[in-house]
Amino acid sequence: MKQRSFALRGDLCWSRDPQHLNTLRDGWLVCVDGRSAGVFETLPEAYANLPVEDWSGHLVVPGLVDLHVHAPQYTFQGLGMDLELLDWLDRHAFPEEARYADLDYARKAYTRFVEDMKHGPNTRACVFATLHGPATLLLMDLLEASGLVAMVGKVNMDRNSPDTLREESPEAAEAETRRWLEASSGRYERVSPIITPRFTPSCTDGLMERLGRLRKEFDVPVQSHLSENRGEVALVQELCPWSRFYGDAYDRFGLFGGDHNCIMAHCVLSGDEEIALMKERGVYVAHCPQSNTNLASGIAPVRRYLDEGLNQGLGSDVAGGSTLSIFRAMADAIQVSKLRWRLQDQSLAPLTAPEAFWLGTAGGGAFFGKVGSFDPGYELDAVVLDDSRTAPVLPLPVEDRLERAIYLSEDRDVVKKFVRGTALW
Amino acid sequence: MKQRSFALRGDLCWSRDPQHLNTLRDGWLVCVDGRSAGVFETLPEAYANLPVEDWSGHLVVPGLVDLHVHAPQYTFQGLGMDLELLDWLDRHAFPEEARYADLDYARKAYTRFVEDMKHGPNTRACVFATLHGPATLLLMDLLEASGLVAMVGKVNMDRNSPDTLREESPEAAEAETRRWLEASSGRYERVSPIITPRFTPSCTDGLMERLGRLRKEFDVPVQSHLSENRGEVALVQELCPWSRFYGDAYDRFGLFGGDHNCIMAHCVLSGDEEIALMKERGVYVAHCPQSNTNLASGIAPVRRYLDEGLNQGLGSDVAGGSTLSIFRAMADAIQVSKLRWRLQDQSLAPLTAPEAFWLGTAGGGAFFGKVGSFDPGYELDAVVLDDSRTAPVLPLPVEDRLERAIYLSEDRDVVKKFVRGTALW
Repeated sequence: MKQRSFALRGDLCWSRDPQHLNTLRDGWLVCVDGRSAGVFETLPEAYANLPVEDWSGHLVVPGLVDLHVHAPQYTFQGLGMDLELLDWLDRHAFPEEARYADLDYARKAYTRFVEDMKHGPNTRACVFATLHGPATLLLMDLLEASGLVAMVGKVNMDRNSPDTLREESPEAAEAETRRWLEASSGRYERVSPIITPRFTPSCTDGLMERLGRLRKEFDVPVQSHLSENRGEVALVQELCPWSRFYGDAYDRFGLFGGDHNCIMAHCVLSGDEEIALMKERGVYVAHCPQSNTNLASGIAPVRRYLDEGLNQGLGSDVAGGSTLSIFRAMADAIQVSKLRWRLQDQSLAPLTAPEAFWLGTAGGGAFFGKVGSFDPGYELDAVVLDDSRTAPVLPLPVEDRLERAIYLSEDRDVVKKFVRGTALW
Repeated sequence: MKQRSFALRGDLCWSRDPQHLNTLRDGWLVCVDGRSAGVFETLPEAYANLPVEDWSGHLVVPGLVDLHVHAPQYTFQGLGMDLELLDWLDRHAFPEEARYADLDYARKAYTRFVEDMKHGPNTRACVFATLHGPATLLLMDLLEASGLVAMVGKVNMDRNSPDTLREESPEAAEAETRRWLEASSGRYERVSPIITPRFTPSCTDGLMERLGRLRKEFDVPVQSHLSENRGEVALVQELCPWSRFYGDAYDRFGLFGGDHNCIMAHCVLSGDEEIALMKERGVYVAHCPQSNTNLASGIAPVRRYLDEGLNQGLGSDVAGGSTLSIFRAMADAIQVSKLRWRLQDQSLAPLTAPEAFWLGTAGGGAFFGKVGSFDPGYELDAVVLDDSRTAPVLPLPVEDRLERAIYLSEDRDVVKKFVRGTALW
């Protein structure tokens, strides 16, 4: 069933920009060598000889992109939601992540993460593993075998965590990170490493400095957390009194975009200076609405980031968020934007469904290149949904069926999935 | 498979009050003549001859109770979420409800509503139909046949809606409501009528007066909407300048509890006087967190209502909410309570999972009598969940599995369901 060139028939939805949702009922999406050759009302003569994937009556959307997810935390999705960030890390996240020193445990847990992601609507993700090099490589092996595309980070952390989950010194951390980078760089077709300081409270300046050097040496992107929670922001100010704002504490070490791709998760509490620097450096905001709700962090000003033209996508942030599907993140993003508008700031209009769909497809997809749309030239990630389970009495336009999928789809509705033009099953 | 006395084995969770969640791994729940005879660690000798329902390893919870749902709106669940209440009614709810003049349409739509509710985790609901008597009776017939327990209201509305969905006069409305009450009262074992003025903006004083009289004459409960949205509250003040507050505009006509059971949905914007009167009259608050988010209404002070001892339960408010399952309403209630705490008022602590579980079982169940718990004497509604789909690597305590079910369960996880001791399949 694997094929890199084909013509797919179905009810198509895709975005070019946040404001414009394109839909085509009973249209043709042509894939040539893993990339879109375009969308057509009738199949052009030139493609008449391609194999046909006939998904008539099904909803077909670009693969969804998860810009921020913690694979080892998937074991406790939907649990321990009664704490704020720093206590939640101590009580739930750190003890669980410590278990990944055990490769048997890691294999069981990561297998379930990868299997569930494979069968849901996401095709790409930027993933935090743990600080353990071997378990991180195992996760990368499993992701590569699944056919998904992912950037995966061995996490770095050398302070403010239990002995069982802390690197011994900046030097030891650098050595382990170098081993992991050497082992993983160029080893995979679809999976690649990404430098991953957990966040400033977990990383000494000495470690950050070394990570900045490794980043340059191996020419890899960066992911971390930024301005999620009040206690965390205050702690960063205390730990890095020299920093002008939280983001500056990454920027100082060359870990805040500019000459490299960089994702910062959350950005709930970013101030004007921080936002200006994110924009200047092209930093991607990974908006994680469910996690920011569960950990009572607040609601990020996504509308402002859209208006100012920042790079932006969505993150599930499992297990701060409970659900892998980025459809759920789209719904959550719309919903919390309404509460923000109602309770906090009526100058920022709520998100629309097309905007949320763009964030979860082309918005986040741009971090991976030309990804997240069906426009010609885009890498062809496509998800075929059987939405008959929730079909109403009267037929709906494709656009309405998409809105419904955002609110109601379940992973089992995904009946076929292509990544870079290759079917995952 | 139908039986009214049996001994059920499984991993049991139930509440007595909002603060105390009871759990028992591998316990026995005994049902005698449709009521709980109690929960036991080992099956007492006295019940040794009962037929056994062995659901070892499964999670077993009381049936969930939906205190507020619009059956005719189920056709557009997850659609049209970009408007506030009054515009949303005009654009989406009213045109759809007008279709239920057609009994063929009503049968198709209501059949899907009832089938989906039957197979999800809810066992009881207080349901708004439309203003059409015949379609409302049809819905009641379908609910009765399903084995679910429901109170169903023919909606009354004689102003501020399109010609296609408005009763001609208070007199005509009274006559039609009387016909419906006469046809439905005593006709069913599990379904009963409930007086349902849509809300004050839709009902003239003359209609309200007549509904108050009918309520008394037929000795039935009442359901309506209260203080959901700012525009609505202002409109009520304009329409009923004599009212001290919105709830007073029901109370004046004997439609606000006291000598009868009464549910008011939403109560997002209720002030001190209104809250005091709800408490005095024993009015049930139906908290509908997802709907209040989708329609950008705000977040109700559920913690205050709990602290003050008001009657309270959860509502899906489909299609203001997109999802029938009250598990989802529990998760939403917890989540929005955190955002309310963070953004609006730090004097009201967020809800805990046990509190949300209580609201969705015994809290709302009390509207139906001794319902929503496994304590002895309660009517036995029970839902058996197969939670293996989301099982983690290491086994979890029952309490944690329940928290997970709140966030992650899907309707398909419901493998068996009892209402008043009778299996639905």
